Amino acid sequence: MVAAQAKRIGLVYQPRKPEAVELAAALSQRIRAAGIETWTESAWEEAAVSASLPGTDLVLTFGGDGTIIRTLRLAPPLGVAVAGVNFGKLGFLAEVEADEVAAALPRLLAADYWCEERTLLAITHRRAGAVVGEYLAVNEALISRGRANRVVRLQLWIHGEYVTTYAADGLILATPTGSTGSNLANLGPVLPPDMRALIVSPVLPFVSFPNPLIVPEGAPLRVRAVFDHEAVLAIDGQRTIALQNEDVVEATIAPYPCLLARLRGRHYFYRVLVPGLQRAPLLPSTPEGG
Amino acid sequence: MVAAQAKRIGLVYQPRKPEAVELAAALSQRIRAAGIETWTESAWEEAAVSASLPGTDLVLTFGGDGTIIRTLRLAPPLGVAVAGVNFGKLGFLAEVEADEVAAALPRLLAADYWCEERTLLAITHRRAGAVVGEYLAVNEALISRGRANRVVRLQLWIHGEYVTTYAADGLILATPTGSTGSNLANLGPVLPPDMRALIVSPVLPFVSFPNPLIVPEGAPLRVRAVFDHEAVLAIDGQRTIALQNEDVVEATIAPYPCLLARLRGRHYFYRVLVPGLQRAPLLPSTPEGG
Amino acid sequence: MVAAQAKRIGLVYQPRKPEAVELAAALSQRIRAAGIETWTESAWEEAAVSASLPGTDLVLTFGGDGTIIRTLRLAPPLGVAVAGVNFGKLGFLAEVEADEVAAALPRLLAADYWCEERTLLAITHRRAGAVVGEYLAVNEALISRGRANRVVRLQLWIHGEYVTTYAADGLILATPTGSTGSNLANLGPVLPPDMRALIVSPVLPFVSFPNPLIVPEGAPLRVRAVFDHEAVLAIDGQRTIALQNEDVVEATIAPYPCLLARLRGRHYFYRVLVPGLQRAPLLPSTPEGG
Amino acid sequence: MVAAQAKRIGLVYQPRKPEAVELAAALSQRIRAAGIETWTESAWEEAAVSASLPGTDLVLTFGGDGTIIRTLRLAPPLGVAVAGVNFGKLGFLAEVEADEVAAALPRLLAADYWCEERTLLAITHRRAGAVVGEYLAVNEALISRGRANRVVRLQLWIHGEYVTTYAADGLILATPTGSTGSNLANLGPVLPPDMRALIVSPVLPFVSFPNPLIVPEGAPLRVRAVFDHEAVLAIDGQRTIALQNEDVVEATIAPYPCLLARLRGRHYFYRVLVPGLQRAPLLPSTPEGG
Repeated sequence: MVAAQAKRIGLVYQPRKPEAVELAAALSQRIRAAGIETWTESAWEEAAVSASLPGTDLVLTFGGDGTIIRTLRLAPPLGVAVAGVNFGKLGFLAEVEADEVAAALPRLLAADYWCEERTLLAITHRRAGAVVGEYLAVNEALISRGRANRVVRLQLWIHGEYVTTYAADGLILATPTGSTGSNLANLGPVLPPDMRALIVSPVLPFVSFPNPLIVPEGAPLRVRAVFDHEAVLAIDGQRTIALQNEDVVEATIAPYPCLLARLRGRHYFYRVLVPGLQRAPLLPSTPEGG
Repeated sequence: MVAAQAKRIGLVYQPRKPEAVELAAALSQRIRAAGIETWTESAWEEAAVSASLPGTDLVLTFGGDGTIIRTLRLAPPLGVAVAGVNFGKLGFLAEVEADEVAAALPRLLAADYWCEERTLLAITHRRAGAVVGEYLAVNEALISRGRANRVVRLQLWIHGEYVTTYAADGLILATPTGSTGSNLANLGPVLPPDMRALIVSPVLPFVSFPNPLIVPEGAPLRVRAVFDHEAVLAIDGQRTIALQNEDVVEATIAPYPCLLARLRGRHYFYRVLVPGLQRAPLLPSTPEGG
Repeated sequence: MVAAQAKRIGLVYQPRKPEAVELAAALSQRIRAAGIETWTESAWEEAAVSASLPGTDLVLTFGGDGTIIRTLRLAPPLGVAVAGVNFGKLGFLAEVEADEVAAALPRLLAADYWCEERTLLAITHRRAGAVVGEYLAVNEALISRGRANRVVRLQLWIHGEYVTTYAADGLILATPTGSTGSNLANLGPVLPPDMRALIVSPVLPFVSFPNPLIVPEGAPLRVRAVFDHEAVLAIDGQRTIALQNEDVVEATIAPYPCLLARLRGRHYFYRVLVPGLQRAPLLPSTPEGG
Repeated sequence: MVAAQAKRIGLVYQPRKPEAVELAAALSQRIRAAGIETWTESAWEEAAVSASLPGTDLVLTFGGDGTIIRTLRLAPPLGVAVAGVNFGKLGFLAEVEADEVAAALPRLLAADYWCEERTLLAITHRRAGAVVGEYLAVNEALISRGRANRVVRLQLWIHGEYVTTYAADGLILATPTGSTGSNLANLGPVLPPDMRALIVSPVLPFVSFPNPLIVPEGAPLRVRAVFDHEAVLAIDGQRTIALQNEDVVEATIAPYPCLLARLRGRHYFYRVLVPGLQRAPLLPSTPEGG
């Protein structure tokens, strides 16, 4: 990779973490001192982040996986890479810990990194044929019951072919990145993040086909929700959209991947997979509070 | 069993099924003609049903499993037996199909049946120590996320011993009757309905202990919910109660079982289990609507 | 519990662990010095252990879970309690670590312990109606394929009622003690060790009913194996018996439990469950050998 | 597709099915009468089938899935297509039922079909570095315990990176075709048969990482087996190879797919998936024999 000095760097922070806000401000000063333009925004101000993105070489995020994911839903259409500075429980997305970023900054500013391309999910929400919403998902879209514990009927078509109807709590449509999220808890398979495939995995399937399906690129998904209580479409656990009966959710692999700026070596995925999952403690030693 | 002529029969119907309402009315006339007192109520009028129950020998329900379950949450404290006349998809609770009940009526009126005792779940909902709700569940209590797709932390104690903390979509506390409901879809174990034990089964456990637990009589359960979005307590999928952060749900086997009047032979459970589940079609041949 | 001085103590050791052999010998001398009769045998000499058991007050085992389990299959019919001195990876059966047993000896000799009763599985192997073998199992009986990867058809009756036919790799019939063994790996439920119930859990069920069944006391199990290659009956992973086509395996709860001498407090099970399972490392940090 | 008249047709039959042997003979006569060369062999004579394959345009198999699979392990290196004539329970591999093949023959002889390419697994068995066996698998390779019910330790590397060590009953390495076999019974994901990916799925993983892994093309698998009893390598459930302690099994996607001659339309996979699995009855109505 040819190193090319960055000209414009974005800094996106989790607004509820004071140490993240402070570190973003301190790094911004340091980057400007190096003659590089910067902009700084809260991860929750999606419109402001989107407005600042054009012309940006790299976005640094300061927070946990949630902050990276919010940014990754905005940056891909513009081809802007993202590097996560980690303040949360270490996930698979962040690249440096908060206390390592100062040392890593020269490489980041010199573009001395490689870009990992991760498959994104493009969602279209339709009602009576008309598009009523479009979303990108980094981890997954969940089509599920709302508050009441009532099954939803979810009819599935792949590549135009009717597959089955689930009577279930919900249906996870996950990216490879999301394969280590809800899908993992649902006993689903783990895919390397750059694989061009999606996972369809039913949650609590009642006498329905229970195994997850792996769907390759070029085979669009269509899910129609039939229910008499309440159903929702949830994007990355961050947005919750109310569905109406007979609404349709279409899903495909997005035409552009998200780009993660990586300082580590390539082919790291299988090496860090099990230790990374194991780091999450199976059990807190004492109940919090009690 | 000594047959003893019934003196007072209740008829409880699903109000949205006209054929159930009509059949209840017709049978009520026929029973009165035999000199037996009757009362008739909608399953949705729980207060009215409760007021009519004292002194009742047998309640006939006209609807699907939901109608039986509503009645079974009211009748057990009074020791009143219930016989389900089935209008829905055949489950494991109903005793006769709608078109068979006329023929079966003489045996039902003569109390020529045996009473199956099914284990019930008694739930106490506490907030800061104070009781804010008490419920009986025929199938299960689910403590879970609300609409947003966010994990809830659920701390579990059994018999006063701290067991673990789940980071999960929810936790199912099921009776043996409920073992063929949500618990079955969650890959949980099937228990015979009269077994004096409960099932604890996590839904989408994130790096938490995933296996269901079987808890015998005399070992009360305590679950404390910690969350930053929304969590609910759902009783038999019919009642949804909003939880506040740090609310506690206590669960034990109820002191009285529910009583199902049975005309069939005893020890039927293992015989009908797999055919009964199989009758639910794995797949509708065509999507409804499309 | 009234403490009553022991008169006869057995010491059973894993013959391949020199430190277990040595500790058994050293403790035997110390117990004899206290005027108490002892006998010492290898766990692999089952006939010799059985011959020595009558009149024994307590057996100490020196080894891992395998050594305790071998002893527990012999001692229960005589009502002799067993205390495991642990040299292996700590499981749920052993009571003291090897380096703690010297300090614990006075309480053990004074019978200052309580006896935990654990449910045992009694197996009868029949061929054309005739009994060809009888076994006790502490953890589980597995009826499964042999070396070739071919499904076996396993017909199941409970309490004389035909339940289903599995086309599967095998069928686990587990005790509550065995619920944390193969059954756990098969996603099965965990039962407290004194519960009077058995678990039936299919391994790799091909389009068969997949959920485990919990079967209470008084409901005998009958499994008939139909196969065209090879099938085996394995008892606690320690004995492997070749089956012939159409052989029948009957299983019930044994009339006597096994008795574990416990120094710890009662009601410990739910407290140690998750930490005990977690102690087993999910992942060795480096492959052994490579 | 340009239709090109076949010049040489192979007929491979299951030798234990007289009706399969007869139909193969009858069709051979009919094909020869059309001036086309034929050869006919038992599926069990692998050397003879291999010797006859060069120059063959199409092989018809007469039997069940086992017969097709045996042929599919031999034909791919020569690029010969296979069409299965079905005598067994209908699986996903056969193209025509036995009573339909006469009508379908003109299209098959005129090469009026399309060739479905299915991903094959190439296995290398190494001992102390040296190759001791090489195999193709259509469905899966299973590395597992032998007759005794003892866990095997299976160390996994992907693309040269150490992933984890399983303590398990076995490890399934499945093709997309095999995703509806053992892998399905193990709750694993279903992949479309032409996807260039493999599945790694542990059977009864004891406190090991339980989720299946999807591994794309170009990421070779290496599994090292460590055990103290017995372990085997099973290819498609048809060949069983004894392993020695510390043997290594390497697996990659084979450089050539297997070719299935298809008369049906393309993109059929998702349409037939659930009905095809459902056709296998969940439960025989009566036990065979009893």
